[in-house]
Amino acid sequence: MNWAATIAGCPVSALTDFSASINPLGTPDKAIAAIIENTDKLTAYPDPSYPQLRSHLAQHHQIDPEFILPGNGSAELLTWAGRELAQQKFTYLITPAFGDYGRALEAFGSKIISCPLDLSATNSFQLPISQSPHNNSGLLINNPHNPTGKLWSKAEILPYLDKFDLVAIDEAFMDFVPLSEQQSLIPMVKEYSNLVILRSLTKFYSIPGLRIGYAIAHPGRLEKWQKWRDPWSVNVLSEAAAISAIQDLEFQRQTWNWLKSARLNLYDRLKAIPGLQPLQSATNYLLVKTETSATRLQEKLLTHYQIVIRDCTSFPELGDRYFRIAVRLPTENERLVKAIAQIIGQLSTENSGGTRT
Amino acid sequence: MNWAATIAGCPVSALTDFSASINPLGTPDKAIAAIIENTDKLTAYPDPSYPQLRSHLAQHHQIDPEFILPGNGSAELLTWAGRELAQQKFTYLITPAFGDYGRALEAFGSKIISCPLDLSATNSFQLPISQSPHNNSGLLINNPHNPTGKLWSKAEILPYLDKFDLVAIDEAFMDFVPLSEQQSLIPMVKEYSNLVILRSLTKFYSIPGLRIGYAIAHPGRLEKWQKWRDPWSVNVLSEAAAISAIQDLEFQRQTWNWLKSARLNLYDRLKAIPGLQPLQSATNYLLVKTETSATRLQEKLLTHYQIVIRDCTSFPELGDRYFRIAVRLPTENERLVKAIAQIIGQLSTENSGGTRT
Repeated sequence: MNWAATIAGCPVSALTDFSASINPLGTPDKAIAAIIENTDKLTAYPDPSYPQLRSHLAQHHQIDPEFILPGNGSAELLTWAGRELAQQKFTYLITPAFGDYGRALEAFGSKIISCPLDLSATNSFQLPISQSPHNNSGLLINNPHNPTGKLWSKAEILPYLDKFDLVAIDEAFMDFVPLSEQQSLIPMVKEYSNLVILRSLTKFYSIPGLRIGYAIAHPGRLEKWQKWRDPWSVNVLSEAAAISAIQDLEFQRQTWNWLKSARLNLYDRLKAIPGLQPLQSATNYLLVKTETSATRLQEKLLTHYQIVIRDCTSFPELGDRYFRIAVRLPTENERLVKAIAQIIGQLSTENSGGTRT
Repeated sequence: MNWAATIAGCPVSALTDFSASINPLGTPDKAIAAIIENTDKLTAYPDPSYPQLRSHLAQHHQIDPEFILPGNGSAELLTWAGRELAQQKFTYLITPAFGDYGRALEAFGSKIISCPLDLSATNSFQLPISQSPHNNSGLLINNPHNPTGKLWSKAEILPYLDKFDLVAIDEAFMDFVPLSEQQSLIPMVKEYSNLVILRSLTKFYSIPGLRIGYAIAHPGRLEKWQKWRDPWSVNVLSEAAAISAIQDLEFQRQTWNWLKSARLNLYDRLKAIPGLQPLQSATNYLLVKTETSATRLQEKLLTHYQIVIRDCTSFPELGDRYFRIAVRLPTENERLVKAIAQIIGQLSTENSGGTRT
């Protein structure tokens, strides 16, 4: 956020950040308490088999603990998924894709086959993956998808488990979907030894600074990953915070309640602004198509309102005509909407020559 | 420590742990305070370039920040050093060696050439490395060496920088050596682009549960490692604790003061026990040769005294005739010495038939 603060000419703390898709309810109080209580445990190494954390996660997902491997954020586990995928002839990847996928795949020399989403079909994307892929191929899917927010159903993904030798599904934002609507493939892991699920706790519980995620896959695969990486990847404070957080049912309920109405409202308000077309999202961010330059919008939001949005120039398929915003608290969302409306209004007046009168 | 508590029949908290070589002065108070102060920073991702931490470490070592890469414990960075070493034809490794070296080298298929220490030359080890290694070879050295505590001089190591294509030096325990006696190769990194130094903060500052270490090497190499691993490897609490810890000169002074006399005393007391031969050590642990089975000693210390020592059966070169102990606080060391003396006394009485009278 230092770059943004520099452009805005204010301290980082004065910015309102819509660019990172983190739960605006903040870190659960119980998780913070667990961190502080456990500062006396720092003098010992973590147990490399993380028995307590695995057992709690296992209970949370109703799967055996040996199918779970905690990591230093799901990004660490993505690295090892990347190494596995690189052992396939090709990796099929839906684009636009989260930037770190490219890093993890290229780190081990994966050959990527891009599968572009048809964004013109705004709200009814098909999974753009060939039904008859090359032999010895891997597939990396993001569900819900980042940056569109699209949630594919289990039924849509299932057939691909029989077509690919390795399927990695990044479900980093699945927790934001209310339980009854989630489409996690975790229940299929036991049956499919070629399936790997990546999960993150950092977004939903607002602890990206602490780093905690996990992989769910067959034990043999996870044991291999453990020999690739160092033994003590998860720090004891993350472990304690995670155990506390996943048991915080009240925080989970509050998050789902907030998100449902906040996202709907933000979507409607943006859609009402001329030249903007938000995409329907199942999670805590919205991708918005814009007739105005997203880069210009980003800059004006920063310099005039100290608001940060994510332009999409790092997604080559989206370029300057899309931006992504996190759903935040209602008053913050309202501030954003008003700021965007004002900027777009001014720009269209300038363009129509209105400022010369 | 769960295995040890089970054998000892007591909770983990009741054990006195001489098996892990951690500073017994505990985590510096200022580092704990820094952790608690920074729990409100958990809602943001760490800056992947870790500018503050790098700048403080750079100042600490009088080197430019771009020569430093922080990691999730030095074990994480060892993984990437292992990947680099595996690109050489062979890796020369002094044995006995810290167990995680094998893991990191094998993870990427290194061909290891073992260089056994001549342990019979108890206190005057030569570096057991060929002066004319194979072409395209790497070297992994531990200085001070684990488990012997041997500190090699800069002058002894320097010639190898011209003989090997890649030299990785793990200086995880160098901080325990008083400043004026340290033999770090950090000052040579600028001149030698084939040199990588690994450092740990977890042992000296007693924060193995928090995970923080760093590599010092040429920027091009570190940039490559950053593309191999995920961007947010160091959590923000580790970052804050590390910055606070390395500035805590008082804690450093206290540690050196404690260690000098505590180690000397422990060495003398052990040497006075019949059948024990401790090796001279420059750091915070002692390797001890024993005529009694180390496994049996370990078991009796656990069951009768709730004391944990490290048997050396995981070092194939040492087997049952060596154990390793951390230097702890004087009263704890004294308890250990008395317990060992009693056990050895009893065992020798049993062996000489004394119990049959």
